[in-house]
Amino acid sequence: MSELTVAQLQARLEEFAAARDWRPFHNPKNLAAALSVEAAELLEIFQWLTPEQAAAVMDDPDRAHRVEDEVADVLAYLLQFCLAVGVDPLRALSSKIDRNELRFPRP
Amino acid sequence: MSELTVAQLQARLEEFAAARDWRPFHNPKNLAAALSVEAAELLEIFQWLTPEQAAAVMDDPDRAHRVEDEVADVLAYLLQFCLAVGVDPLRALSSKIDRNELRFPRP
Amino acid sequence: MSELTVAQLQARLEEFAAARDWRPFHNPKNLAAALSVEAAELLEIFQWLTPEQAAAVMDDPDRAHRVEDEVADVLAYLLQFCLAVGVDPLRALSSKIDRNELRFPRP
Amino acid sequence: MSELTVAQLQARLEEFAAARDWRPFHNPKNLAAALSVEAAELLEIFQWLTPEQAAAVMDDPDRAHRVEDEVADVLAYLLQFCLAVGVDPLRALSSKIDRNELRFPRP
Repeated sequence: MSELTVAQLQARLEEFAAARDWRPFHNPKNLAAALSVEAAELLEIFQWLTPEQAAAVMDDPDRAHRVEDEVADVLAYLLQFCLAVGVDPLRALSSKIDRNELRFPRP
Repeated sequence: MSELTVAQLQARLEEFAAARDWRPFHNPKNLAAALSVEAAELLEIFQWLTPEQAAAVMDDPDRAHRVEDEVADVLAYLLQFCLAVGVDPLRALSSKIDRNELRFPRP
Repeated sequence: MSELTVAQLQARLEEFAAARDWRPFHNPKNLAAALSVEAAELLEIFQWLTPEQAAAVMDDPDRAHRVEDEVADVLAYLLQFCLAVGVDPLRALSSKIDRNELRFPRP
Repeated sequence: MSELTVAQLQARLEEFAAARDWRPFHNPKNLAAALSVEAAELLEIFQWLTPEQAAAVMDDPDRAHRVEDEVADVLAYLLQFCLAVGVDPLRALSSKIDRNELRFPRP
């Protein structure tokens, strides 16, 4: 696992957008749309695959690269969305897992 | 910024799914579909809002809670997808920013 | 096959939105977002199903009703989007099939 | 409005897929995923536009062509999905409008 942190990546993303004057486009609505579009591009890789072919997706170097690229795009827009609305994504997920542990009790 | 890490959250998600026998459902295709569905649920909060209303979304406590909840769901499926395909999401994003710095030179 | 037409349904949708003062919300961007959200809600029904379970989705009356409901929502936003941008959806599809017949020659 | 009908277009789509041996891929789950992906491609055209720019999208010939092309793709997968599950899309929408007239009474 990398020693990169979410906070470092958010700082790089913010600096990148600011240097290119992209920040006016980065309101929460546009970022939520872009996140949804990138998630669909990730899904597109799998749309005609059987579950078995999907499980082996990383065996094909071209597909593996596309998967990594789309994962990066989804995460980039998620982190920028979180900056725009002031949400800490790791804390949000931690709280959600806490709630789900109550909602779906361990069998 | 929280001291939580992506690796810790992935371990909790994996344990949570294993304890409830949900892992057979978590192939990459299903997880990519679920990620896309959750991203759309985040977008749904914004679909009829003006950009100005969207920028103020966290002023409304109910909407703020929905936003945090959907961010958590998107991140949960993204992290589980990454576990299923063996991709390190932070490293993937870091590499993508490196590539984008070459592709979109600083003005 | 019903004798309903796309034009009749578009007229009903337009009258419905106008009577409820919803038209200011129906700009092309919002309608494209809403269409995408409804398509994801249709996908949600299938996200954890195997291909075999998916093929039998209409055998379950509750799921069958959800499928019909989401199909209606997708079509409603597609037709309203087409009104907003002045596109005839049937003609657009007919032209696309013509182009695809050249692009993917019959084997 | 064109004199094309949904039933004619469905017949052309079905014949097109059969001639290219694509039908094994066209189970309802895959078609719902493809529909969702195409709806996101339509949304992508609008993701960074202001509502005003979005309203004028058809003034740009390149964007206008992309819009028509994505509308065609969304409709193509919606109609093929409906064939796969045996739903009449126009009847489904007509019934939904009937229900919505009761659910959202005219002011």
